[in-house]
Order: sequence, then C-alpha cells, then structure tokens
Amino acid sequence: MYQGKVQIVGAGPGDPDLLTLKAAKALSNADVVVCDRLVNPEVLDLCPENCQLIHAGKSSGRHTMSQDDINEALIHFAHLGYQVVRLKGGDPFVFGRGGEEAQALAKAGIQYEIIPGISSALAVPAYAGIPVTHRNLASSFTVVTAHEDPSKPETQVDYAHLAKNKGTLVFLMGARSIGRISVALIENGMSKDTPAAIIENGTTNRQLAYRCSLGEATSLAQREEISPPAVFLVGPVARLEDLVWFEADESQEISWRCPTEESLSKAIS
Amino acid sequence: MYQGKVQIVGAGPGDPDLLTLKAAKALSNADVVVCDRLVNPEVLDLCPENCQLIHAGKSSGRHTMSQDDINEALIHFAHLGYQVVRLKGGDPFVFGRGGEEAQALAKAGIQYEIIPGISSALAVPAYAGIPVTHRNLASSFTVVTAHEDPSKPETQVDYAHLAKNKGTLVFLMGARSIGRISVALIENGMSKDTPAAIIENGTTNRQLAYRCSLGEATSLAQREEISPPAVFLVGPVARLEDLVWFEADESQEISWRCPTEESLSKAIS
Repeated sequence: MYQGKVQIVGAGPGDPDLLTLKAAKALSNADVVVCDRLVNPEVLDLCPENCQLIHAGKSSGRHTMSQDDINEALIHFAHLGYQVVRLKGGDPFVFGRGGEEAQALAKAGIQYEIIPGISSALAVPAYAGIPVTHRNLASSFTVVTAHEDPSKPETQVDYAHLAKNKGTLVFLMGARSIGRISVALIENGMSKDTPAAIIENGTTNRQLAYRCSLGEATSLAQREEISPPAVFLVGPVARLEDLVWFEADESQEISWRCPTEESLSKAIS
Repeated sequence: MYQGKVQIVGAGPGDPDLLTLKAAKALSNADVVVCDRLVNPEVLDLCPENCQLIHAGKSSGRHTMSQDDINEALIHFAHLGYQVVRLKGGDPFVFGRGGEEAQALAKAGIQYEIIPGISSALAVPAYAGIPVTHRNLASSFTVVTAHEDPSKPETQVDYAHLAKNKGTLVFLMGARSIGRISVALIENGMSKDTPAAIIENGTTNRQLAYRCSLGEATSLAQREEISPPAVFLVGPVARLEDLVWFEADESQEISWRCPTEESLSKAIS
C-alpha cells in the first residue's frame, strides 16, 4: 500500500519571505495543509489549487481542533496516501508541540520530516534592531514560553533562576503576561533598570517596538494595550538603540489569520 | 550620489534548502557577496554570474579577514553603489557578530537590512530528532557560545548558573570544548546522568548524531574525534530517541567551504 508522508513545517514569523526554500517546496507539493493560526496566509499561495486546507488554530468563537484531533487528521491523510504539510508559525520544535505530533506519527508508523522555520524568538528582536547576542553584552540567550500548560499545578518556569541570568531572556507567547513576568523577575532580584523591549506583530508591516526598563514594562504593556503576538525581551542587548533598520508600513496590511476554514469533521469523515 | 545597500544575511545551517526566500532574493540581486566559511557553497549558485565573491572566513593556512577588514569592505562596496550581501552561517545575530557589522554600517550612514537565518541551535537538534522544547521535558532553552572572546581574562559563561538550568542547553562552536563544558557543568552540580547529544555536521549528508549522558560526553567526543561544526546539547529532551527521521547519506557529499576565494587586498584596491 502506498503511504503518504507528513512534513512538519515551520512557516517562520510574520514576514512571508522568511519562509525557507524547503518549506516552499513542501507547500507547492502538498495535497493537504493543516494550518495553525499564527501563519501568514500569503505563504498559502504556494499551495496547488486543489490542495485541501484545514484550519487547526484557535480563534475566538471559531472551531478549534484539539491536539488529538490534529494528530488523528495527520495520520488519517497520510494513510490515504496524501502528501500532508503540518504548517506551524515560527519553528515547529520551539513551543510548537511539533515533538508531540512527531511522536504520534512515529507511533503510527507514518514517515515524517521536520522542516525548521525561522523562530520569532530570534527574528522578531532582529527586526526591532536587537541582536539576541552581542559581544560584551550577551554570550547566551534563553527562550522561555510564558504561556504554559494550564494543567500543571505550579509554574515550571523558574524565575529565581531566570532572574540571575546575565544573557538575554526572550519570552514568547507572553503578551498577556508581561506584568506577571516583570514582577517575578524583580521579586527574584533582577534590577528594575535592566533594559527591556516589547515587540508586537514583529516582522510584519504592523510591527510596533518599544524600549523600556524592566521596571517600566508592566505600565507600558497596559498603556499600549499589548496583545498577541508579542515578544518580551529582557537583557543588556535591549540597550542597543542604534541598530534599528526596519520601518513597518501600516499601509501594507498583513493579516495573521488563515483565509479559509474547513471543519475537521467534514474533512476526515 | 547613489549609495548601495548592505544585506546581512543568514544562510542557515548545512542544508542549502533551509535558506529563506528573502535570502535567495538577496543573493540573486547581489553585486558583491562577502561570505563566511560555514556557508554551504550551493547557495552561492543563486548569485548572478558577474557577482564578486569575497571569502572572509577562517580556514587554516588561508587568508582571513579581520572584523575591521570586513566592516571596511562592506562600507567600501556600499559607497561604490553596489548591492552587497554579507552572508553568514546560521543566523547573523546568533554569535555571528552581525550586530557589530550593523553598528559599523549605521555609524558610516550606510543603509542595511538584517535577514534572519535558520539557526543551527534549533535546526541541528531538529535534524537529529531532538526538539529543543517538549511538553513536560523543557519549557525553555538556552543557547551558549563555547568559543568566547579570547581577549577576556575570565570566561563570561556562568557555569554555576547553567548547571542549575532545568531546560535545554545548546552549546554552539563547542566541538573542541565538550570536555571542558561537561566538567564545568558537573563540577557545578549538574547530574552526570543528564541526557546529552553531540551532533557533528548537522543538517548535512555527513551528519553524525550521538546520544550519551553528560558524564560520558568527554570520552565520546575524544573517541569519535568530534570536530567543528558540532552542536553539544544537554537536557532531558536528549532522552527522546523515537523521533529520529533524518538519515544522512554520505554518498551525496556536501562541502562546507566557499568554492572561490578572492583576496580582499585585490578586491578593495
């Protein structure tokens, strides 16, 4: 029996040109694309006309697939012999649960491939003119998810440890948690004067980048009504202000939603 | 006066298909490419025929440009009105000194752009079947350079802090330092039984990936004569062994050197 293959693909952050050649090839050969919410829909133009698009992401008031539903769909379409692309924002192995999907495929005996994507942890600071490492300022960087598994009784993030970090801290999925993160770092001994940056809609034409101190971050996030997607960066590199090169042009609106939705129930029935 | 522009471009790790669309466009429009050593030469096929290639990287016994030479060359060619691509392995802002080059360009009033690349810190583990984050195993990852500024009297890497890290540690440029890193982590209290992985020539057809414990890493690195480029990963995610999907095929040799070299003295005279 011919069996399909699943490619777990990172679409990169907002700028559609940050897609890799390998991801572009995968999309142009796809029979089915199972797409996350935080994927720039422009990259879907690369799919063939008869490609089936399944919207898996969360969007308030709309149908959302559970992780089990997604795994089941990937396995189902691979068994039908299709070339399946599982398209995820950023990099699939950076808080993308790509590892869990790969495990489900491995367990089901389905052939799969990982296609790394540009992670917003690096590219969003870069588009705000902030290198995550810089000579004499940061010889390491740490990427943390601020949006954790809610089933866990306690936070897995060790703020006492992070507060002693001398490199760069990058918090992803933390738009709603900037206050909580800042307070936790300061309470654990990090200086209120530590340079910080908040970048909303990074790498897109709606990018807004703010510099502040760690102590000012909470009020800034409230005042500017920071909402997802946003990156919160803390560390000496945020002090570098002479490297800004990207100017967002709001006249070129980029949407962050998948354009088409097809319900899973219909798709796998 | 018309002035050129410099694009500081990440070429990604070994797999040439991990180049971004944006980087491919930049290369196909380049008048001059100033290329690092750890760039897959296949991506240079995208350059126009009359494009001037300058080899900036270190290679034993060959001409090497200093950082000042490189900055000077970028400014020189931009002043001549050329489209200049500064092509770097991986991501230019991850230990690539891209920030320093951007500062030199900003100071000289040259227009520049950062094009992020796939970082080997994420992609090399991914090609070895290791997600740097995984639910219940790692909710953060830290990327550290093992090759530091030799002019510094003491190491800037805080091993006492790293040894208490509960997430994933990824050491780049550490092929020759695996023993030193392992000893430092263990001396600072990290368990010898912590899962670890060493990946040599990651994402290429010569990739070799080894799993071990932190306590075994030194002898493994010696026995297998690990040499650059290599990634050293420490953390619970290295325990995941069911996710291997990439098989390197040595019959398809990939070289890691720039194919052409032109001396800077000739180029900027």
